[in-house]
Amino acid sequence: MIPKFDRITIIGLGLIGSSIARAIRKAEAAKHLVAMDRDKAVRERVMELGLADEVTGDAAQAVKGADLVILCVPVMANAALGAAIGPHLSPGAIISDVGSVKGSVVRDIAPHLPEGVHFVPAHPVAGTEHSGPDAGFAELFVNRWSILTPPPETAPVAIARVRALWEAMGANVEVMTPEHHDLVLAITSHVPHLIAYNIVGTAADMEKVTESEVIKFSAGGFRDFTRIAASDPTMWRDVFLTNKDAVLEMLGRFSEDLLALQRMIRWGDGDGLHALFTRTRAIRRGIIASGQETAAPDFGRPHPPLPEAKKNQ
Amino acid sequence: MIPKFDRITIIGLGLIGSSIARAIRKAEAAKHLVAMDRDKAVRERVMELGLADEVTGDAAQAVKGADLVILCVPVMANAALGAAIGPHLSPGAIISDVGSVKGSVVRDIAPHLPEGVHFVPAHPVAGTEHSGPDAGFAELFVNRWSILTPPPETAPVAIARVRALWEAMGANVEVMTPEHHDLVLAITSHVPHLIAYNIVGTAADMEKVTESEVIKFSAGGFRDFTRIAASDPTMWRDVFLTNKDAVLEMLGRFSEDLLALQRMIRWGDGDGLHALFTRTRAIRRGIIASGQETAAPDFGRPHPPLPEAKKNQ
Repeated sequence: MIPKFDRITIIGLGLIGSSIARAIRKAEAAKHLVAMDRDKAVRERVMELGLADEVTGDAAQAVKGADLVILCVPVMANAALGAAIGPHLSPGAIISDVGSVKGSVVRDIAPHLPEGVHFVPAHPVAGTEHSGPDAGFAELFVNRWSILTPPPETAPVAIARVRALWEAMGANVEVMTPEHHDLVLAITSHVPHLIAYNIVGTAADMEKVTESEVIKFSAGGFRDFTRIAASDPTMWRDVFLTNKDAVLEMLGRFSEDLLALQRMIRWGDGDGLHALFTRTRAIRRGIIASGQETAAPDFGRPHPPLPEAKKNQ
Repeated sequence: MIPKFDRITIIGLGLIGSSIARAIRKAEAAKHLVAMDRDKAVRERVMELGLADEVTGDAAQAVKGADLVILCVPVMANAALGAAIGPHLSPGAIISDVGSVKGSVVRDIAPHLPEGVHFVPAHPVAGTEHSGPDAGFAELFVNRWSILTPPPETAPVAIARVRALWEAMGANVEVMTPEHHDLVLAITSHVPHLIAYNIVGTAADMEKVTESEVIKFSAGGFRDFTRIAASDPTMWRDVFLTNKDAVLEMLGRFSEDLLALQRMIRWGDGDGLHALFTRTRAIRRGIIASGQETAAPDFGRPHPPLPEAKKNQ
């Protein structure tokens, strides 16, 4: 049986941090929950929402006596945070995070950890387009995957405890190397975000098409991209700067493939287009079959009712 | 007061055609509704679903006596269809369509129309990733825009009747030229579909990342693209072949902007990335404010409940 944590400290109470706080509460996975955020407005909101037993703006104090510390900050904030909390971590404590890039997290945090502290980096592959402590909800991780990338020397019991915590929050867990994680996420998350941001930017810069037209007629496909392109700018800036190599590699492939498609359009290669458009349906079916997506049309978006029939029309 | 139609014929009972049939029924907008599809399996399903008063596989017979004919077929099927039905259209009939490209539709259909027949091309900017008569629903067009692109000589009364029909189905209506339509839709719909198809193809072709990994970790952003990339292949092939010029123009801008972003990543221009990522949020807000999107996180995707807390953890 894996013991419950005595004292979990969450640093950074945005969408992910506040969702973890809520899920830990619901799963009764910690005896005492500490929330640390450097932003006073966030701390006040966390207190109003009752997300933790203790709320502080002092990182060193927050981690004292904690047997689990979870860093939920933009990935480039980890280095300074690691330096600030390192000396105050208790022997035997586990330190984890939720960063979307894992290679840089390992590089930035590991050097600051005293001996006897266990490092289990994690990345829950889940999120919404909203940010901040009000945006979180306890069910965010249900049926989603959380990827752990522990260094080879990490104690198996520490990995098991972090795994159990994610499972208690409803997530599935997979373990891989930071390098492989960064490659997989470059194609399943980072490049999709980049091209979503990009097309929204391109559309905003048209001269012959007004912004009002882009907005009105967005239901033709564009609006799905805007959801992703509404994600937190600081978090995503950090992702692209810290996972540069994998992102540039995947972006190169994407652009190469796009040029091939462009050429098919220019030369009227209907069979080539049809073949690609048929092949891509299979991936969608796999995502639905694996429970990562709803089968309902339009992601289950609500469709308002028809107006009443006008008999005198 | 705009009179109800006596006899509406819908040709092609896919997602859009069958949604129109359902909406017309609910809005009581036609005294008699005829469904024509060349596919026997579709006709049988339309009969089982009771979507029309009359179901036929004969286009010439279907349009006889109709005061409104709506073509709901892939855009490249319009030329042959126009030739087949032209001689059988009744004087005073209105012919309309739902094609996602309007320039080619006007070119392909207009020459086949006898004098006295009114031509009001239309494009409802709405859809889901599903295809076929079972995928349709009456509410599909509610709060969506339907764009009419009538030739300058079309009688205003014909335009008014088609407008009233779309409004009865819950849609908003805008009138513009076919050329402007094709430019607007290239950026709000056609290029988004193309890059969605493209990234799903790129992801499927990885050597170092398995398809199972792409599927598992798709909740990081990728899965939203797969919805669009599951759309009907024939319809979309036709869109790209018939709106070639506008798509290539918009694609050129997209790629140019993407190269600029790529360069920012390569050179570590965090401020440039942050500025773009902040700007794109405003467009999202506009789309939500205009009722083209739900404000609920994740498009209102359902989130399953947390597992019960395990007290013995």
